Formats: sequence, structure tokens, C-alpha cells
Amino acid sequence: MSESPKEKELPRSSCGLETTKSREGIERVKAFLESYKDSKNPDWMTNIIPYLSLVSYSSSPPHPSITFKFTVQPIHCNNLNTLHGGCASTILDSCTTLVLHLISKPGFWQYASVSRTVNVTYIRPIPVGTTTHVKCSILHAGRNLCSLRGEMRSVTEDGQEGLLLVVCEHGKANINPPAEKL
Amino acid sequence: MSESPKEKELPRSSCGLETTKSREGIERVKAFLESYKDSKNPDWMTNIIPYLSLVSYSSSPPHPSITFKFTVQPIHCNNLNTLHGGCASTILDSCTTLVLHLISKPGFWQYASVSRTVNVTYIRPIPVGTTTHVKCSILHAGRNLCSLRGEMRSVTEDGQEGLLLVVCEHGKANINPPAEKL
Amino acid sequence: MSESPKEKELPRSSCGLETTKSREGIERVKAFLESYKDSKNPDWMTNIIPYLSLVSYSSSPPHPSITFKFTVQPIHCNNLNTLHGGCASTILDSCTTLVLHLISKPGFWQYASVSRTVNVTYIRPIPVGTTTHVKCSILHAGRNLCSLRGEMRSVTEDGQEGLLLVVCEHGKANINPPAEKL
Amino acid sequence: MSESPKEKELPRSSCGLETTKSREGIERVKAFLESYKDSKNPDWMTNIIPYLSLVSYSSSPPHPSITFKFTVQPIHCNNLNTLHGGCASTILDSCTTLVLHLISKPGFWQYASVSRTVNVTYIRPIPVGTTTHVKCSILHAGRNLCSLRGEMRSVTEDGQEGLLLVVCEHGKANINPPAEKL
Repeated sequence: MSESPKEKELPRSSCGLETTKSREGIERVKAFLESYKDSKNPDWMTNIIPYLSLVSYSSSPPHPSITFKFTVQPIHCNNLNTLHGGCASTILDSCTTLVLHLISKPGFWQYASVSRTVNVTYIRPIPVGTTTHVKCSILHAGRNLCSLRGEMRSVTEDGQEGLLLVVCEHGKANINPPAEKL
Repeated sequence: MSESPKEKELPRSSCGLETTKSREGIERVKAFLESYKDSKNPDWMTNIIPYLSLVSYSSSPPHPSITFKFTVQPIHCNNLNTLHGGCASTILDSCTTLVLHLISKPGFWQYASVSRTVNVTYIRPIPVGTTTHVKCSILHAGRNLCSLRGEMRSVTEDGQEGLLLVVCEHGKANINPPAEKL
Repeated sequence: MSESPKEKELPRSSCGLETTKSREGIERVKAFLESYKDSKNPDWMTNIIPYLSLVSYSSSPPHPSITFKFTVQPIHCNNLNTLHGGCASTILDSCTTLVLHLISKPGFWQYASVSRTVNVTYIRPIPVGTTTHVKCSILHAGRNLCSLRGEMRSVTEDGQEGLLLVVCEHGKANINPPAEKL
Repeated sequence: MSESPKEKELPRSSCGLETTKSREGIERVKAFLESYKDSKNPDWMTNIIPYLSLVSYSSSPPHPSITFKFTVQPIHCNNLNTLHGGCASTILDSCTTLVLHLISKPGFWQYASVSRTVNVTYIRPIPVGTTTHVKCSILHAGRNLCSLRGEMRSVTEDGQEGLLLVVCEHGKANINPPAEKL
């Protein structure tokens, strides 16, 4: 049996969005990670998302947070066989954005937001094969702007966090319509 | 006839380095771009470099520069079908680094350098299909640290530059051995 | 005769604002610089503004700009007798903001805006006594957010610009009421 | 009895350095704060240091830290009567640098270092009169480069920390001679 016509007609990205838009909070994060499992139309996150898994999260104010696990593959590297800076930036950009699902509600960081600034500081090189924790939190989310923070730390085989590898600050602007216009 | 054993044994990235290490200045930039044409071991730049071409360059102090052309493909996008911020960061990280070839000499930004900071500001979304100029220059290159700047601008069909889309500042640290130890 | 009651009642800052709010464009920049000449209630710009003078400006899109002249005094230094980083930041924060007067109109960057990010990169130390040009421009000004850029360069006695000393990117958010509510 | 000629001849800043160079760790931080109490030659920190006091500190790796207390005075404000961004930058630049005293030793961040980058994000305006905690820590200190982080939070009258106001990341380069050359 073939796929349903509906599924075929949907553009890839909308497909992912449809799957996740009906969920809330951490369930929406999980659905997003799942949506790349058998993605047929690759985009810039296709080489990232399948290597991310959820470790823990907290929805408590003032700084809701999620920790992901990520292990560096050859596809993520530069020609020194360490994680490419642009890949670290992609991971941190994407993972910090996902934390917004923990606080979103109609008109407030719900459907779409755009990056304004992504500032990354590379502390230590990350060799291929390294397992890391990607820890992301909301520094502040106002009506129009938010500031997110992410960091990557090495993890030992028994899950103990080790060295700080990369830090990131991510500033976004809300482009949701106000709740009263929904 | 098959490839030589030596070529087969070399990991891709070293291969690329070997090809380019013997060149100087803009020839080395060209060789680097070429080296991804039939890359067999994909890395994080595999989806970027084949879409970059050289437009112009200047080796004149105080701010040597190179302009590349880049057209946004679906693989570079987020689920809004605009250039993913992490992809823009990868492009600007890689392209600003290439400008260092214009000034490198033994012991001075020749073989390897590592990123310390990459700060990107996203001015306007860049829809799939947009052709851009990626303009990169050296703000300053000292013995241990350098500051590079990059920006992306839209380009019309007849090559006229248009709107500013993204800006980036890239700080690197030199990890070359001093010339006297080479 | 004493000062007028009105002048006494006015808080310092409003006084400066009153003087400048009726001006437009570069005239408003000049009025602001003048307003600190005999300021009786010092604030954080009191040690900066009197040392700034206007060199040139351009209101032309896409990147309106102003160049100021500034000579480093002992009051601006750290204990190495070079310009303190926080002072450079203050100068660049203030001077980049003034360029917005070149494009402001009712509801559009007219009265007040707040800094969101100020990222400064220190290229070279600036010894006390150095005369500099502070060159500021508007990278982009949208309805809610703008990105400004500033740099300081050394200047020879005959006004020739020399070395790049400091660069800055300044992101602001508009807090003006929309024009239709004024 | 008057002061000794030697003390009179010393420029303030060298004086401060002499006073503090013989101390180590947190004692050196305290000596630095004290050195501005009756400073005769004002510099850019003269309006800041007297308003800083030590709250707590930790020398424990991996992230040694110091918390200072600071109350915003009119001299620190812009014309909206909130803390000027350049003043916040000065405070965070200076306070993060002081944390390096907790780890310095001959040849390692002991005498002098220079700022390379100071990136400040302004989360909330800070009205005159606000008491804040300035919390600074070492993200990483290598042989040549270090990354420091600072943040300001509001404090209630009974010392409880409240809202996040400003965050900062400060990158410095070591300019100490290596220990073997001392």
C-alpha cells in the first residue's frame, strides 16, 4: 500500500509542523525530534536532529531548560576531524529554540520566531566521537524578544558531565500574531 | 584505471589539505573550493562548498577581501523555507576563514587556526532560491588573534548588490607553529 | 538673578531632551552634543560628550552615517593608561545611537529606543592622547529592531585615518509609540 | 606629617597596582576596591569602584566566581534615568576581570590581560536606585585566552536575588610574560 495522498501533497516542512503543532510543551519537542526520523525532503537540520536525544528538562521559571545528548559524527566535522563551528552553531540555534516550546501559548512564542543574533564562543575543540550534553535555557522571554543560552559539555560513558566545550547566546524576535488576532 | 592506493588511503580532509597546501593566495582558495567537487567522505562543508563560487578578491592591505556567490538551496533551509541560521553561520565561518589565505605565510595563519567567536546578526530572512554575495574581509590579523568580517547581500540577476541580509564577526586564534620551528 | 523656576523643576535629563526634541536630523545631533556643555547634573555621558565633535555625516540610504572626532583623556583610561574598554563601549553605544536621528520620524526611532546588545571587539590598545575617528552607521533599521555599527580609527594630525582600533555592533529595540497613537 | 614623596610622585594607577600586586586571590580583589577610596587621579573606574562591595566568592574549579553588590547612582544613568549601557559594560568588564585574581599565578593571568571581546545583552532597564548583584565567573582560562561571564540581577532589601537584568561575556588575551622569563 502506498502513502496517503494527503501525506504526499504536504510539503516536508509543513508536514513536520503539522505533526508538532498540535502538541504542547515537551511533547512538542519530542514530536519535532521524531519528525526527522524518516524525512524525505532533507533540510539543514536533517544531519543534526537524528543524532539528538532528550536527557532531561525543567519547565520551572525563571529559566526553563532542556538537556539533549549529541554525539559528534564525521558528517559534523571540519577537516581537522573536530566538530565544525557552523555545526555547533546549528545545534545550539536549533536546541535553544526548542526550549521555547516549554513556555509557548497562543500569541506568545507559539508558532514562529526568527533569530536576530547567535553568538557562539568555542572553548575547546570537540573531536569526532565525543558525546556531549547540549544544555539550553531561557534567560528571558518578553513579548517581542527573547534571550536563550546554550552550552555543550563533554559527557563520560557513565553520564557524568565534564568540560565546557562551547557556549552560545541566541536572541530571537517573536513573529506570532498577537493572541487577540488568532 | 583505478585511483592510486595512496589516494584511497588518505582520509578526505587530509586529501583536500594536501591538494591545497602547496598553493598560495587566491589559488589556494580556488583549490579548496575544487576539492569538494567529488568528495567521497562528506563533512559539514559538503553541502556548502559546491554552491560557492568566486566573484572577486583583493589582497590589498589593510583589509584584504574576497566576494563569493551563493544561491540558497532547499538543503540549506529551515522549515520556513528560508536559509537556516546555522547554515548562514557555516557559510560565513568558512568563507571568512578562506580570506586568511590571502595573507598567510610560514608561521603566520598558514596551516590551521581555530575559531574562538562567531557572532552572527540576522537582518532579513533569505528565501530559498535567493542568490547572494558573501563578502568577507580581514579586519585585523595579529600574531595570535585575528578578526574577520563577513556579510551576505542579495544580488539581482544582472549582478547588482541589493539588501544586507546577514552580518558576521569571526574571531580566530592562530595555532600554527612559529616560523622558526617549522 | 537666579535661574527660572521652570529650569529648576526640570529633571536634568528631560532638560536635555527638551532642547533636542524640537530639532531634526543632524541639527538634533548637534543640539545633543551642545546640551552637555554646561550640564549641572552629571550622568554617565558627562565625561564623554564634551570630547566629541562632529566631523562629517551622510543621510543617504542604505547606510546613513556620522563620523565624530574623539581624543582620549586620562579620565577615559584604565590603569595601563589606555582607553578603558567600558569607555570605548560607552562612546560607541552613544555615537551609534545618535545616527538614528538621521532617519527618525514620528513613530519611527524618534524619541526613545533601548539597547538590546552591544558587542565590542578591541583590536588595538588606544593610549591616552590618541585622536580617533568614531565612524557610525545604520546597518538596518526596521519597525521594531535596528542594527548599528561603529568603529574607532586612529587619526594623524593632518586628519588622515589610520589603524582600526575598535569595532562594535549595537542592536536596539524601538520603544516609540506607533505614529497613529501619537 | 605629609605623605612620602614617593607616594606623591606615583601616578594613581601605578599606585593602585603597587598596592595590589603583592596580594593574592580575594585579598588582591579587596585591595583593588580599596585603592579607589581616596584616588587623586580619576580614571574611568573612579565612578564605579567606590560603589562596588564584595558579597561572596568561590575559588573552586571549574568556575571560580565572585559576587559584588552595586547600587545605581544618578552618575551611572542615561537620560531615561536608567543605568547607561556603557556603565553596565564598564561594571561587567571590570568585575569579570577581577575574578582572574582567584586563579592567577606567575605567568598565568597574573599582571595584565587585555580585553578582546565584550558582548553585553540588556534584558531589562535598571532604574536609578536599584541594588544589584554582579555575579562573575570564569568559564575557561587557558594559557593565552580566557572567557568570563557576568550578570546583574536585582536584589531585594533582604538580599534575595530577583530578576535577571544584564548578561555579559568577556573574552581576554593574556599579555603576561611566560613564567620562565619572569
